[in-house]
Amino acid sequence: MHFTSETSSNGVIERTFTLDEITGVLWSPTSGTVGAPLLLSGHAGGMHKKAPGLVASALHCVTTYGYTVAAIDAPGHGDRPRNSQDQRWAEAIHRARAAIAPIAPIVIDYNMSLAERAVPEWQATLDALQALPEVGAEAPIGYGGMTLGVVTGLMLTAVDSRIAAVSFGGVYVHDALIEAARKITVPVEYRIPWDEDEIDHTAAIALFDAFAAREKTLHAHPGRHNQVPEYERDSSARFFARHLGRAADTASD
Amino acid sequence: MHFTSETSSNGVIERTFTLDEITGVLWSPTSGTVGAPLLLSGHAGGMHKKAPGLVASALHCVTTYGYTVAAIDAPGHGDRPRNSQDQRWAEAIHRARAAIAPIAPIVIDYNMSLAERAVPEWQATLDALQALPEVGAEAPIGYGGMTLGVVTGLMLTAVDSRIAAVSFGGVYVHDALIEAARKITVPVEYRIPWDEDEIDHTAAIALFDAFAAREKTLHAHPGRHNQVPEYERDSSARFFARHLGRAADTASD
Repeated sequence: MHFTSETSSNGVIERTFTLDEITGVLWSPTSGTVGAPLLLSGHAGGMHKKAPGLVASALHCVTTYGYTVAAIDAPGHGDRPRNSQDQRWAEAIHRARAAIAPIAPIVIDYNMSLAERAVPEWQATLDALQALPEVGAEAPIGYGGMTLGVVTGLMLTAVDSRIAAVSFGGVYVHDALIEAARKITVPVEYRIPWDEDEIDHTAAIALFDAFAAREKTLHAHPGRHNQVPEYERDSSARFFARHLGRAADTASD
Repeated sequence: MHFTSETSSNGVIERTFTLDEITGVLWSPTSGTVGAPLLLSGHAGGMHKKAPGLVASALHCVTTYGYTVAAIDAPGHGDRPRNSQDQRWAEAIHRARAAIAPIAPIVIDYNMSLAERAVPEWQATLDALQALPEVGAEAPIGYGGMTLGVVTGLMLTAVDSRIAAVSFGGVYVHDALIEAARKITVPVEYRIPWDEDEIDHTAAIALFDAFAAREKTLHAHPGRHNQVPEYERDSSARFFARHLGRAADTASD
C-alpha cells in the first residue's frame, strides 16, 4: 500500500493510496486512536471512491465516532481504466436509460462481474490496512455501501469473517444476493428506497428475510436510492457505533 | 381537567388528572417552555397510562427535547372500570392464549370498539390540554402508540388535523386501519416487530403502503411488539424532533 497524497482539514486526514491496481482513499481523525473501528465504504455503480454521499458519511463517522474509513474504486471506476467488456455493459445501461427501458437485468450482470473482481481487492486492501500500525489487526470492521457497493459488500461479508457489521442501501435483488445473505450472521441494517421504480418491494423484503443475522433491521425511506435522507445517514452511523463501538476519545452524542 | 396529584423528580413534573371519566397523566420539564411540542402517548392493550415502556419513552422526550407528554387510560384500562362487554372480550383473549389459539381476530374487534370510544376522549383531552396556559393552542402535536394505542392513534389522526406526526409500533392490520391510513397525510414512522407470530409481514407492509403521507418511514426490528430495542425508542424521539421541533431551550444532541 503506497500513500500517494495526504491532506488535512476540519480534523480529518485524507490519504489516497494505491495497492497494485487498486486506487483508494483513507480518512482518519487527526487525533487518531490506534485500533479505532474501521469502516469499509463501497460506492454505487458508476460512481467512485469519493462520491459525495460516501464522503459525507465517511467524514461524519470520522468526526463523530473517531472511525477510520476506507473506500476503493471498483474495477473500471474512478481512477481505474475500464475494460472493453465493462464498457459494453456501461453502454448498454446508457442505451436502456435513453430508451426508458428496464436497466436492472443489465446492472445485475454487470455488478456481479464487478463484485467478483472487487471482493479479492477489498480483501487485499483489508490485509494492507490491518498491517498499518494506526489500524492494526484488532480494529472492529464494518462495511457500508450502495447499489454496486452492496453487491460487493454482501459477497465480501459472506466469505470474510473480519466484517462484523453491514449497513447498506438500495440494490437490485437477485438469487446470488439472496444466497450471500443466507451466509451472513453479523448485524445488518438494510435501507430500502421505497420509491425506486425498479426495486420491487417484495424482492427487497425477501432479501431482508434471507439474512441469517439475528440482529437485522429494515428501514424503508421515501425517495430513490440516491435520495437517502440525512436521518438515515445518521442512523447508519449509529448502527455502526452500536455494533463496532467508537474510538475511546469521542464524546457520546 | 382536574389535576389530582403532582410529583417531581429528575427534572420532570408528573401530574395525574381526570376529565369526566377519563384518567390521565401529564409529564413536563420542570424548566417548562410555553408552547413546547405536545406528545400524546397511547398505551398497548391490557396496559395503562403508566406502562413502563410508555413512561420510559415519555421521560426521554421530556428530558431530551423539552416535550410535554400526555397519556390517558383507554376505556376499561388502568384506573377505569371495565364494562361487561369488554370483560367478555378480555376473557376471550385469555382463553385463546391459554389454548395457544390465534388472538388476533378477538383483539381486532375489541381494539376497534375501544378505539371508537377513545377517539372522542383523546379529542376532549386535547381540547383541555390546549386550554392550559403552559401548552396553548400553538404547540405542535404528535401521537405515539403501540397495539391498541396504534388503532386509537390512527383513527384519531385520520379525523383530527391537530395531529402533525405519528410514530407507532406493532399492530394487527385490518381493513379499518388501512382505511384510516389512506386518510393520513402527516409524517409517519412505523415499526414492525418482525418476529411477532401473529403479525403478517405482507399485511404490515400493506398498511405502510396505504399511508397517504409523503414522509413515511418503515422500520422492521427483531423481536416482538413488547421487545422494542432501545435504539428504536431513540429513533422515535428523533422522528418527533425532526417533525415537531423541540423546546427552544434544549441542547442539540
